[in-house]
Amino acid sequence: VADIEAEIISVGTELLLGQIVDTDAPAMAQTLAECGIVCRQRVTVGDNHERLVALLRAALKRCQVVITIGGLGPTQDDLTREAVAEAMDDSLETVPEVVESLKEFFASRGVKWTESNAKQAQKPTCATHIPNPNGTAPGILCNKQGKIVVCMPGPPGEFLPMLEHSVGPMLAQIGTGQVIFSKSLRVTGMGESAMEAKILDLLASTNPTIAPYAKVSEVHLRLTARAATKFDALKLIEPVEVAVRKRLGSAVYGCDDETLESVVIGMLTSRGLTVSTAESMTGGGLGKRLTSVGGASAVYVGGIVAYSSQLKTAILGVNKDVLQKHGPVSAEVAQHMAENAKELFKADYAISITGNAGPTSDTDGKPIGRVFVGISGPTTRVHEVNLRGTREDIRNRAEYLALRWLREDLLNLNPNG
Amino acid sequence: VADIEAEIISVGTELLLGQIVDTDAPAMAQTLAECGIVCRQRVTVGDNHERLVALLRAALKRCQVVITIGGLGPTQDDLTREAVAEAMDDSLETVPEVVESLKEFFASRGVKWTESNAKQAQKPTCATHIPNPNGTAPGILCNKQGKIVVCMPGPPGEFLPMLEHSVGPMLAQIGTGQVIFSKSLRVTGMGESAMEAKILDLLASTNPTIAPYAKVSEVHLRLTARAATKFDALKLIEPVEVAVRKRLGSAVYGCDDETLESVVIGMLTSRGLTVSTAESMTGGGLGKRLTSVGGASAVYVGGIVAYSSQLKTAILGVNKDVLQKHGPVSAEVAQHMAENAKELFKADYAISITGNAGPTSDTDGKPIGRVFVGISGPTTRVHEVNLRGTREDIRNRAEYLALRWLREDLLNLNPNG
Repeated sequence: VADIEAEIISVGTELLLGQIVDTDAPAMAQTLAECGIVCRQRVTVGDNHERLVALLRAALKRCQVVITIGGLGPTQDDLTREAVAEAMDDSLETVPEVVESLKEFFASRGVKWTESNAKQAQKPTCATHIPNPNGTAPGILCNKQGKIVVCMPGPPGEFLPMLEHSVGPMLAQIGTGQVIFSKSLRVTGMGESAMEAKILDLLASTNPTIAPYAKVSEVHLRLTARAATKFDALKLIEPVEVAVRKRLGSAVYGCDDETLESVVIGMLTSRGLTVSTAESMTGGGLGKRLTSVGGASAVYVGGIVAYSSQLKTAILGVNKDVLQKHGPVSAEVAQHMAENAKELFKADYAISITGNAGPTSDTDGKPIGRVFVGISGPTTRVHEVNLRGTREDIRNRAEYLALRWLREDLLNLNPNG
Repeated sequence: VADIEAEIISVGTELLLGQIVDTDAPAMAQTLAECGIVCRQRVTVGDNHERLVALLRAALKRCQVVITIGGLGPTQDDLTREAVAEAMDDSLETVPEVVESLKEFFASRGVKWTESNAKQAQKPTCATHIPNPNGTAPGILCNKQGKIVVCMPGPPGEFLPMLEHSVGPMLAQIGTGQVIFSKSLRVTGMGESAMEAKILDLLASTNPTIAPYAKVSEVHLRLTARAATKFDALKLIEPVEVAVRKRLGSAVYGCDDETLESVVIGMLTSRGLTVSTAESMTGGGLGKRLTSVGGASAVYVGGIVAYSSQLKTAILGVNKDVLQKHGPVSAEVAQHMAENAKELFKADYAISITGNAGPTSDTDGKPIGRVFVGISGPTTRVHEVNLRGTREDIRNRAEYLALRWLREDLLNLNPNG
């Protein structure tokens, strides 16, 4: 059976000019994939009748299904109904029952009825209305000579419920009947091309397909299978996932919504271990990451942000001579910060971060991007790196690396963990 | 003079399938508008060579300027370079200097070089490279027979700086020749409709135009003027800015890239005051915000993340009876945390945050979203709020409000400051 193909057309000058970010079209695209309908392309066009008609005609030539989002309101700028009728060689008719229910809707909200609102009760003669419990403009479903056009309102509060309750189930029926299911493996400590080199043959797989996505500090591998049921799709994914994990080893740290922080918190929880932090350059960012995970309170005791050198000495007990001799951005200070924090907070582990994130070279002459991370557990390891980018990049990357190195230590503590 | 027209093509299967939301294309569209270039339409297409070539050819027929975003990476899926070369009837060449600088970039990060990365040093022969200080793939600027194609990398951390520093200024030159200059006023503590009501007549202004953009916790008012020179544009903006500021008073806290944290750090710096933090629910997020500002070390001493109740007592010295009687999420604990932190860190001000961000109702029975913020300076004020949203929403909003309230206290300290 040939794939059913679709295109999505987002309508609105505000969208086109980038004054609002389009979150409807991505949600629509995800639904199409789940219904086994292939999304060929998405287009955003302004409130322009001729262009919209031309786009609709071109899309209808290429695809069986065309989705429009937006342009169904009551104002002069709302042109989707007229454009769809013209592109389908049809004309508009007003549905009196819809006019009546619109008037009731206005009355129930205490809003004065103006005649321009009756426009929203129009539809091409080949179409039926799709109920919109959350707004005034109903959706429109056109079905003519084997072509389907679905018109949906743009406000997400109206669009999303209509997608979930009406349009999604309808598209699933006309789709291939197949289900599409994806799983993402999260890979850390290995660049995109190094990873590809290890799984080059697997990347040729067609069901599931395997697609790498480079993120800021890691790579996500998305495995997508197509089958009659979600269970069958999972069965297709499983052996490929096993093969990928075998090739990449512990570089795969989690899947789907798991984050490095949630995985680290999980490892500490299952081992009954606690952790604390002593941050300088990152100013509390590592603590924020750890506590972004619900349930972090069971393992994260707390931390200190020792931003000034005085504080490193006064509260964290970093030796003054060490500070003076090596400067605050040094392996020695990172080590003392981690070891003293572990003791101060009575935790099993402590992570320290000191470094220079810019904007200016530090007083102690360490270049921008030089960072020291200390991990103190049964023993203490200090890592030195030189990071690039903006102040925020350097800080974020240091936090991320601290988590990666803590995970490594926890893996080494118990390699089967 | 006829308008210069442009189209934007976003490339990537992940984008097409809605797995990520495209924020680059809206930013690009805004820049085009500011440069006086008319954006005709935006298209999103997957990693598919033939379709991309067809789209490029069609766009080049309609428009003088075509922008592509994404598909410049080192993997097999990255097809933009090849597609653009084909659509421009050109061929690709490798620039040896770029290969060398890529190798240096990898070496400096301690990442192993793989030969597939050399692909990123290719460009059509009619093109020049656009520097990318934040990633490996340079941008590409093609200029052939009066047609301009600009190819930019997709990761926002690479795309946005390239847009601001290279592509934007270049597009302004080929635009109408007029300079478009914008200034954003940042408004806090006032909703969008309340603000609009105060400046309704000013919103009718056409040069500069005034457009309000609602952000998560604040509203930005964008004043955009068009003139022969930047100086003339600024002269148009000035009187309108003065009028807006007069109407909105101290709700306008800054402009353009200023953030609430940078403004607060600036106020503390100019007054010679220091600040410290005592965080529970936010886990270090407030410290991270304060230290996101370069030069924060002059005023931010440091802080403590007292995530566990034991720590609130042990290190921060919060009275055990107070903790037991009122629970960790209470006005009394927020007050003690702020006052004790001020003393412990020997700072002029201390900010405390305690609350319940979820996911579960706390042991002491405080509902999700209940937050207490203490500001201790010459006196101590405790604020209570009930925030909605996800765990991250609640934490972020609490940090933001703490900064807003510290600013208010500093303004009251010296109303002319």
